[in-house]
Amino acid sequence: MTTDLKTAPQPTTLEELEPVLAGAEQASHAWADTRPAIRATVLDAAAAALDAAADELVPLAMAETHLPEPRLRGELKRTTFQLRLFGEVLRDGGYLDVRIDPANAEWPMGAPRPDLRRWKEALGPVVVFAASNFPFAFSVAGGDTASALAAGNAVILKAHPGHAELSRRTGQVLAEALTAAGAPEGLFAVIFGREAGTAALQDHRVKAGGFTGSIPGGRALFDLATSRPDPIPFYGELGSNNPVFVTPEAAATQDQAIVDGFLGSFTAGAGQFCTKPGTLIVPAGSAIIDQLRDAELAPAAPLLNDRIVDGYQEVLGELDSHPDIQVLAQGSDPLAEAPSPTLLRTTAAAMLADPQALQRECFGPAAVVVEYTDASQLVALAETFEGQLTATVFADPDEDVSALVEILARKAGRVLWGQWPTGVSVTYAQQHGGPYPATTAAGSTSVGTAAIDRWLRPVAYQGFPQHQLPEALRDDNPLGLPRMVNGRPA
Amino acid sequence: MTTDLKTAPQPTTLEELEPVLAGAEQASHAWADTRPAIRATVLDAAAAALDAAADELVPLAMAETHLPEPRLRGELKRTTFQLRLFGEVLRDGGYLDVRIDPANAEWPMGAPRPDLRRWKEALGPVVVFAASNFPFAFSVAGGDTASALAAGNAVILKAHPGHAELSRRTGQVLAEALTAAGAPEGLFAVIFGREAGTAALQDHRVKAGGFTGSIPGGRALFDLATSRPDPIPFYGELGSNNPVFVTPEAAATQDQAIVDGFLGSFTAGAGQFCTKPGTLIVPAGSAIIDQLRDAELAPAAPLLNDRIVDGYQEVLGELDSHPDIQVLAQGSDPLAEAPSPTLLRTTAAAMLADPQALQRECFGPAAVVVEYTDASQLVALAETFEGQLTATVFADPDEDVSALVEILARKAGRVLWGQWPTGVSVTYAQQHGGPYPATTAAGSTSVGTAAIDRWLRPVAYQGFPQHQLPEALRDDNPLGLPRMVNGRPA
Repeated sequence: MTTDLKTAPQPTTLEELEPVLAGAEQASHAWADTRPAIRATVLDAAAAALDAAADELVPLAMAETHLPEPRLRGELKRTTFQLRLFGEVLRDGGYLDVRIDPANAEWPMGAPRPDLRRWKEALGPVVVFAASNFPFAFSVAGGDTASALAAGNAVILKAHPGHAELSRRTGQVLAEALTAAGAPEGLFAVIFGREAGTAALQDHRVKAGGFTGSIPGGRALFDLATSRPDPIPFYGELGSNNPVFVTPEAAATQDQAIVDGFLGSFTAGAGQFCTKPGTLIVPAGSAIIDQLRDAELAPAAPLLNDRIVDGYQEVLGELDSHPDIQVLAQGSDPLAEAPSPTLLRTTAAAMLADPQALQRECFGPAAVVVEYTDASQLVALAETFEGQLTATVFADPDEDVSALVEILARKAGRVLWGQWPTGVSVTYAQQHGGPYPATTAAGSTSVGTAAIDRWLRPVAYQGFPQHQLPEALRDDNPLGLPRMVNGRPA
Repeated sequence: MTTDLKTAPQPTTLEELEPVLAGAEQASHAWADTRPAIRATVLDAAAAALDAAADELVPLAMAETHLPEPRLRGELKRTTFQLRLFGEVLRDGGYLDVRIDPANAEWPMGAPRPDLRRWKEALGPVVVFAASNFPFAFSVAGGDTASALAAGNAVILKAHPGHAELSRRTGQVLAEALTAAGAPEGLFAVIFGREAGTAALQDHRVKAGGFTGSIPGGRALFDLATSRPDPIPFYGELGSNNPVFVTPEAAATQDQAIVDGFLGSFTAGAGQFCTKPGTLIVPAGSAIIDQLRDAELAPAAPLLNDRIVDGYQEVLGELDSHPDIQVLAQGSDPLAEAPSPTLLRTTAAAMLADPQALQRECFGPAAVVVEYTDASQLVALAETFEGQLTATVFADPDEDVSALVEILARKAGRVLWGQWPTGVSVTYAQQHGGPYPATTAAGSTSVGTAAIDRWLRPVAYQGFPQHQLPEALRDDNPLGLPRMVNGRPA
């Protein structure tokens, strides 16, 4: 299953990086000055070009990631849907958060209020570090790129080495489509290699970073971004265990559905989703345990690449060797490059005693089933988790689980009731982010329309003559934007 | 003018800090669960209690800060106005950014959309480091405290040593008013001393930090917050030069108004405002220069405390000894504890050659006047500035200064036209923040209603039964909140 990296693009040298940075800075000014509705047409054109290139890109992705064709075609569809959805966001304009406070001599603060008009402007060039596990949706033309371009920023995309050739080709398609649709040259570029990526992140022209990947990798980049002479925001999505809590009532009445759903969710994408449910917490002696023990755990699919295989084997081995862990169920070849899934088991008491070891994220088709003897342990267990992307409750609809839900809402960006966390929908209300280490910026999301807000900052204009204001802030509202006047919709 | 710190509160020990942290964590849960409109009544009660205590608090502030009574009474009024304005924000509810996406089987992403409902929840306990220069408005009951309490967080306030006794007493008034109005015990506490402040910032129960002060102090705290095992957001307002750019046309037609306004603005509060215009850029040979040279620069007022005096003397001395700096105008006693103002002069060429030295923030009644020989230097000079809270243009209303304004909007959070940056109005559209080093979080503001957003993070609920949802997210909208349904106002 080794990807032949000999044919892959060479690392970008620092000499090659310099014109990329200079071009991004130049392009970002012109792009930020382009009306949002025009930027929307450019995003639409990019989406169309990527759709048109599907028959070329999908086979490249299959060769480099071992993911199956239907999954990759679906993921590319999601990717171009996302570009078009950000076009909708631009045409709506609400993301600009336009606020207009006309001058007011009677303002009760104790001093007259000047004319103040505020909206959000693009940050400037940003660097995005692509993920391994979604070669389209969290990579070259993925969510970070789409939202940053929509916001008016130039994007320098650091390719993931796991699908370098796909990245190069996707980058060409995207860059050409952007330019053909009228975007400035240099608005988007792909770079390769760790050295170029870290150099770009530390360059004074770069104003923010985005990342999806591992905790150690993301933390190292976060530390670089925040230790710059001029620190910049770094939106990293790092790691998550995505625990699932099953009450005794739900275990008794929904056992079969929970077993089926869990088996499907923790093995989806060969367990290589950031929202994989890594911990299932059920009553001791539940029929769920028996059914999981007897489940057929056929080999899922090859893992993405050798590094993922190595990491999976290492973490699974460490979990397996924990004194309080037993194997609950395992397919025939759990350590293969296309591993059959593994279910481990432990007790609530053990997890309460050593949460750090037993809640470690294991990237691949494995999960830990935790048996509790007393429902009060659900709340205690919930308190032991670090920040999460998701947390899930299975309960009877009329049960009072408010204490549990309240804790989970403190721990996670998305709380689910009776559904599975894999399969993150791209919508207006989606929240994909959570307290550290799920992300480095819990106040933001990397999926859904609100993701655009990461790449913007507010600017207020005080006392400007009408015709000297940005169009969006003028009284006659030539762009037809939704806005607040005196703190009220107008 | 030495403040007698012997009578001031003793530093909080780590033993004393522990129950403060535990109490804040406990209180923050109950407070976050309190309906926004109830929290509003509590903020109103706090404002009333502070207003009622004015005759006790203002003399304390006068004794510790040397600021004049009318200024302090005005500042206290601004402070309680701010608490009440955040009450309005809570009653409106738009800050919760409620988004509801009902389940949709036809969602064009390629997979059915689940029911997703998103709003913003409080972060948990936060630590706020008070400023020296606004003993009310950026201190114990100031903007950071008001916005964090409004958002539903507990607040641990690290007092500024420059007005420790005032801080203790203001904290008592505030804490008692909060509790009397029904807020949970422990919701607000004042701590003293650097050790307790840094320990609190690094405690795992604390979820964010706020700060107003110097660049070195703010950067040190930012580094602590971001190097935690679990990094937290740190909203620091650090330093700003607030340059003012005067075009030849404006210099010719508005010279007297510019001179009068500038003299008033750079000496306001004895030059101890974060928005003091530190650089005035005018055409060489302008009448503005002559009038400033002849201005009467009477002693302003005593500086806040000995540390400020020392810092002012040091920076002013360094500026003064720069080979390209001359004194343009100076009062009789420029280095006194109540210094008469100083105006320095330099050239555009000199500032272009050594911007870092010549744009250094000098906290006190001094400013640098820069003479340019060619209007094209305005744009070049603008590019040399680091991130700013404000930047100002004086131009003829019909001049094309769009290139200059575009640069200033990239550098500063607030751009002014023909007005002075001191006197920051508390409004819906205010933006008090800018790229580093003006702040450590350019995407946020510390003044105005949008300041509440710093203390919140989004949480989405997926697939929840109606009666298990937070009230704010239910179909029947029992709290009457503004919200988006399917991405549209509803």
